[in-house]
Amino acid sequence: MAKLVECIPNFSEGQNQEVIDGLVKTATGVPGVSLLDHSSDPSHNRSVFTLVGDEAGIQEVAFQLVKFASEKIDMTKQHGEHPRMGATDVVPFVPVKDVTMEECIEISKKVAERINRELSIPIFLYEESAATPDRKNLAKVRKGQFEGMPEKLKEPEWAPDYGERKIHPTAGITAVGARMPLVAFNVNLDTDNVEIAKKIAKVVRGSSGGFKYCKGIGLLLEDRNIAQVSMNMVNYEGTPLYRTFETIRFEAKRYGVGIIGSEVIGLTPAKALIDCAEYYLQIEDFDEKKQILENHLLG
Amino acid sequence: MAKLVECIPNFSEGQNQEVIDGLVKTATGVPGVSLLDHSSDPSHNRSVFTLVGDEAGIQEVAFQLVKFASEKIDMTKQHGEHPRMGATDVVPFVPVKDVTMEECIEISKKVAERINRELSIPIFLYEESAATPDRKNLAKVRKGQFEGMPEKLKEPEWAPDYGERKIHPTAGITAVGARMPLVAFNVNLDTDNVEIAKKIAKVVRGSSGGFKYCKGIGLLLEDRNIAQVSMNMVNYEGTPLYRTFETIRFEAKRYGVGIIGSEVIGLTPAKALIDCAEYYLQIEDFDEKKQILENHLLG
Repeated sequence: MAKLVECIPNFSEGQNQEVIDGLVKTATGVPGVSLLDHSSDPSHNRSVFTLVGDEAGIQEVAFQLVKFASEKIDMTKQHGEHPRMGATDVVPFVPVKDVTMEECIEISKKVAERINRELSIPIFLYEESAATPDRKNLAKVRKGQFEGMPEKLKEPEWAPDYGERKIHPTAGITAVGARMPLVAFNVNLDTDNVEIAKKIAKVVRGSSGGFKYCKGIGLLLEDRNIAQVSMNMVNYEGTPLYRTFETIRFEAKRYGVGIIGSEVIGLTPAKALIDCAEYYLQIEDFDEKKQILENHLLG
Repeated sequence: MAKLVECIPNFSEGQNQEVIDGLVKTATGVPGVSLLDHSSDPSHNRSVFTLVGDEAGIQEVAFQLVKFASEKIDMTKQHGEHPRMGATDVVPFVPVKDVTMEECIEISKKVAERINRELSIPIFLYEESAATPDRKNLAKVRKGQFEGMPEKLKEPEWAPDYGERKIHPTAGITAVGARMPLVAFNVNLDTDNVEIAKKIAKVVRGSSGGFKYCKGIGLLLEDRNIAQVSMNMVNYEGTPLYRTFETIRFEAKRYGVGIIGSEVIGLTPAKALIDCAEYYLQIEDFDEKKQILENHLLG
């Protein structure tokens, strides 16, 4: 069966429909690749594409999209609410099926090398592809944004992974890397007290001592007047959804608060939920690859 | 995206390797169809094939297999432990993806009609395709087996759905129908008292007043010396796995017994487990078709 890799490139254009249409055309022009979704945010001035394809196709489409963006988006004139450093801001590769993280790291490096060689755009490798721990985190890598990059690239520790210490004059610099699929998972509490959600978010998120692969904040859903623990699960195998869910349940109890429900926003790999069913049903020796019918149909 | 239908024909041959090889060759010779699995049991003298394919392919492969079996298997000489009434004993069609039960019923009738027209094998429609409630249950339809069929077919209520009131001289009669996917789901108890498992099985299975789409028995796992509630979930949407699991949990409590774990045997549709994750995580408004990444990759 074919190896399947997801790619979710982010482009610094969310207003010019002609450019967006051109990106869509490029995204749908490579054999072996499907465009699952794309969305553009005018105020962020940013577009996010979700593609999936075989090893060869996903590398080709990623390169072609970066090339198209570099020809059509001029970062010296680009403004928007979302932080950005390049015409193509970030190109993550995500293992979907029968492909390892190591293979996705290889793919990210091949694409990064080609972008730099053919388009003269410098590249930071980030997330799992990062050469140093400092470069794992996109926010750290992107700090300074397009305007601050010429100076940042001269700092001893911020040489690009590919290319020289200078940005592409109009396309800037791009982050390329491999990462696990991200699941947006929110848990709604039976309270309007947002402080409780914030305290619980602090308990579950890795950055403040909770689960390593969970990012989270507490917020108030104004339309429903309920507090929510809003999470990004950045590695559902390292930190399964049920583990944060059950932790939120027992932490909320201390405030006399219960869980109303939860939300999965956007796409999730089936396995992120199947793993939870395995936990709750206490299934012994389940072999997801072999026993899930659909896994025999893919590819 | 392509509609996908599963077909799991059962053949009354589990000993003659030449015939089994011929079935495999036939099963792999139709475009648009994949042979997922096949297994043969010599003492049962029976082989079960698991195929999946598009609407046209699955009909063609089912017919070709029935044709091959009718040429190679002589029921006047066939013996085995498993009840049977035809060279091809039963041909169930199961909706897998983007296909309704109604469409699978249509498929089953088309294949049944062709089998009868081209091969002169009479057909009983069973399960969801059955014309009367009496014909839903395969055991009832097959009662009397190959040897008793000539007489049974003369009974007023047992005219075949296709064909005359006489069996094919060597291929017998075949049951064809549409049904939901079946999930084999066992729950292991923290006791060696098989009577407790039997009592709980009686509570959860439909035939004795429990959940309509659950069949179940209590048995002792001799190698582990634990009692098990062994179930066939014949419609995981009508009776979700978690519902029997939680019922077994609270029924077992009355005996001071807990659940050790559970087993899913063989293949299961992802949705049977995703539905359980949705329940336990209390996910609001989850749209499995849209939100499961893999559903965008199939077909």
